[in-house]
Amino acid sequence: MTSAVSPLAVAMPALPPLAGVRLNAAAAGIRYQGRTDLVMIEVPEGSTVAGVFTSNKCPGAPIDWCREALKGGKARLVVVNAGNANVFTGKAGRDATAATAEAAAKLAGCAASEVFVASTGVIGEVLPHEKLVAALPALHAGLHANGWQEAARGIMTTDTFPKASTRVAKIGGKPVRITGIAKGSGMIAPDMATMLCFVFTDAAIPADQLQKLLKKGVEPSFNCTTVDSDTSTSDTVMLIATGQAGNPEGSLSDFGKKLNAVLMDLALQVVRDGEGAQKLVKIDVTGAVSAKSAKKIAMCIANSPLVKTAIAGEDANWGRIVMAVGKAGEPADRDKLSIGVGGVWMARDGGVVPGYDETPVVAHMKGREIDMTVDIGLGQGKATVWTCDLTHGYIDINGSYRS
Amino acid sequence: MTSAVSPLAVAMPALPPLAGVRLNAAAAGIRYQGRTDLVMIEVPEGSTVAGVFTSNKCPGAPIDWCREALKGGKARLVVVNAGNANVFTGKAGRDATAATAEAAAKLAGCAASEVFVASTGVIGEVLPHEKLVAALPALHAGLHANGWQEAARGIMTTDTFPKASTRVAKIGGKPVRITGIAKGSGMIAPDMATMLCFVFTDAAIPADQLQKLLKKGVEPSFNCTTVDSDTSTSDTVMLIATGQAGNPEGSLSDFGKKLNAVLMDLALQVVRDGEGAQKLVKIDVTGAVSAKSAKKIAMCIANSPLVKTAIAGEDANWGRIVMAVGKAGEPADRDKLSIGVGGVWMARDGGVVPGYDETPVVAHMKGREIDMTVDIGLGQGKATVWTCDLTHGYIDINGSYRS
Repeated sequence: MTSAVSPLAVAMPALPPLAGVRLNAAAAGIRYQGRTDLVMIEVPEGSTVAGVFTSNKCPGAPIDWCREALKGGKARLVVVNAGNANVFTGKAGRDATAATAEAAAKLAGCAASEVFVASTGVIGEVLPHEKLVAALPALHAGLHANGWQEAARGIMTTDTFPKASTRVAKIGGKPVRITGIAKGSGMIAPDMATMLCFVFTDAAIPADQLQKLLKKGVEPSFNCTTVDSDTSTSDTVMLIATGQAGNPEGSLSDFGKKLNAVLMDLALQVVRDGEGAQKLVKIDVTGAVSAKSAKKIAMCIANSPLVKTAIAGEDANWGRIVMAVGKAGEPADRDKLSIGVGGVWMARDGGVVPGYDETPVVAHMKGREIDMTVDIGLGQGKATVWTCDLTHGYIDINGSYRS
Repeated sequence: MTSAVSPLAVAMPALPPLAGVRLNAAAAGIRYQGRTDLVMIEVPEGSTVAGVFTSNKCPGAPIDWCREALKGGKARLVVVNAGNANVFTGKAGRDATAATAEAAAKLAGCAASEVFVASTGVIGEVLPHEKLVAALPALHAGLHANGWQEAARGIMTTDTFPKASTRVAKIGGKPVRITGIAKGSGMIAPDMATMLCFVFTDAAIPADQLQKLLKKGVEPSFNCTTVDSDTSTSDTVMLIATGQAGNPEGSLSDFGKKLNAVLMDLALQVVRDGEGAQKLVKIDVTGAVSAKSAKKIAMCIANSPLVKTAIAGEDANWGRIVMAVGKAGEPADRDKLSIGVGGVWMARDGGVVPGYDETPVVAHMKGREIDMTVDIGLGQGKATVWTCDLTHGYIDINGSYRS
């Protein structure tokens, strides 16, 4: 399938142990050969949990399971398999998820409702959960504090590099760490969340506050990215707090800021690994009638196949941007529209800027990171979204994946 | 740019003269070299006209012109240029359209408001209308009744074959003919209309009735097709009735039926010439909560890059169809969903059909025309939409077009 690493890849940061968190990965042979495809992450008793999940109306069985389990607000284990999404698998799918959670719970000595199960990969094939359950005891026995990289690799599907991010925040003067891993490359247009992303912290934060922070944090990060406009059936972002840092209660504003930085970092790593991506594209929309309107316009530009192929062709084709603004259905006045690329206004007030010199724009389009600015000229609403270009690589990967 | 003719092309039908209609094409050298790019179509005094135009909020200057001219309900000339869409060109664009209409009106001895101007091609470049105006006198002098093929070819851009359709209908027992031409290949997701389509009839029908018939006819045809989800800034469908058939007033039900057949034929020809298309895909959605909901789901499937690349790879990937149904945001219940390809149910009631034999489905996916059926299992709403696959050809064409 994919072999070359994305040209937009970033190196995985060093991830120090996070008090109370132990990880491990194994090759259960569910779909892939010669690589890990099953990951377990254990957190200590008393850990609180928050989660946001896909808004796709045909979610996978693990999403249903996690939504239910989340009601308890407590977590002890996360079990993730890659290669089979366990989506559209009916009763067999529900049984597979339950059997996995129950087998894992026995190993950890906890309730099945404290086990969060996630699956990613092919849709519509029954998950051979016997293989998965059989691999759990050794996986559990081998849990260790330095398994972050193994875990980040074990959840990959068409990803070409492992994705991780870490920050230190302070609560009540006490430093706490936030570390997250994510996977995702295609079927990326998160609506409530994204593909799979697991963030851990040693901070002590009650589940309801954790949930509020997470919901807020995914908005400007994962929910403002798109690779191909296709919202996955398995999108999951979870945040688990172990409480091991021993922080006092206190303002969570620094924690929220750092959490958002981790989420943004991971979301952009997913876009950087967009299937076939050669360029990372940032789209700023300003001057819309509202923030919601700005985001809709920005997403419409980001999802336009004609804009994305133009970027792949290194063509600063403002005509296609105009088209995408207009098709969004949001208030827009052609004659007040301005479009800039790489910090240079190409078009303003409904026409080409007089004496427009294409040279710096052409140079910018040849780079790996493309900045576009669209000013609607009507109000104060603004939004920023990220996407990648649409290349032959995307067709290669998706004309053959599965089958 | 494109050279090979689409494998889905259909032969252009023989188009007999239509009483009162004269056509001609010329090479004005606006953008293309060595081919015609300017078309004029003349209709006799007393001709009535109907038109529907793009819902894109950033329409081209010719769209504004036609919307205004349509208020009079009368037509004498249609002037179309290919290669430059005259969109996002500000005052220069409005001046170009007006100058073209005025120069053409002088030649025909009519009011400028009886001249309908359309432009298609690159967005954001000023139309060199002097070239266009200079070519008009010879174009007008050479108008002839057998110019249908020349006209169909002269309006092409990335099209690989000319598109035309004709039918005979009866009004009050009198036969009348309906003949239309269209162009379109990329930026196809018509909302109120489509790229360019001009339909003529020798019937005598008042403008207000003509407009009703056209509005109704574009709904199940052009408005149910998509190549790439990108709604053009120039979409135009016009219907002009010359009245030369001398039909009495009478029921328009047969006329409406035949008109709809012409519109459907032309709409499907546009999809057959979708940029890079190798397969024509029909998507039937049944069992949705309403017709509107069914269409939204069908369009969501038709626009999914993952579904379209799977079809290009001849992969009956029902998992991606499930994903696309779910992302539409319309009522859907995963466990009541059924999916069929080529007349074979692959999945039913939320899971794979027991004993499902892939053989006939695999054979169907290798063909040029793919049928998909999705039953939502919730109600009586249904819709049918058409699209094409997403291939390397699309990337080739759009990574280099313009630039």
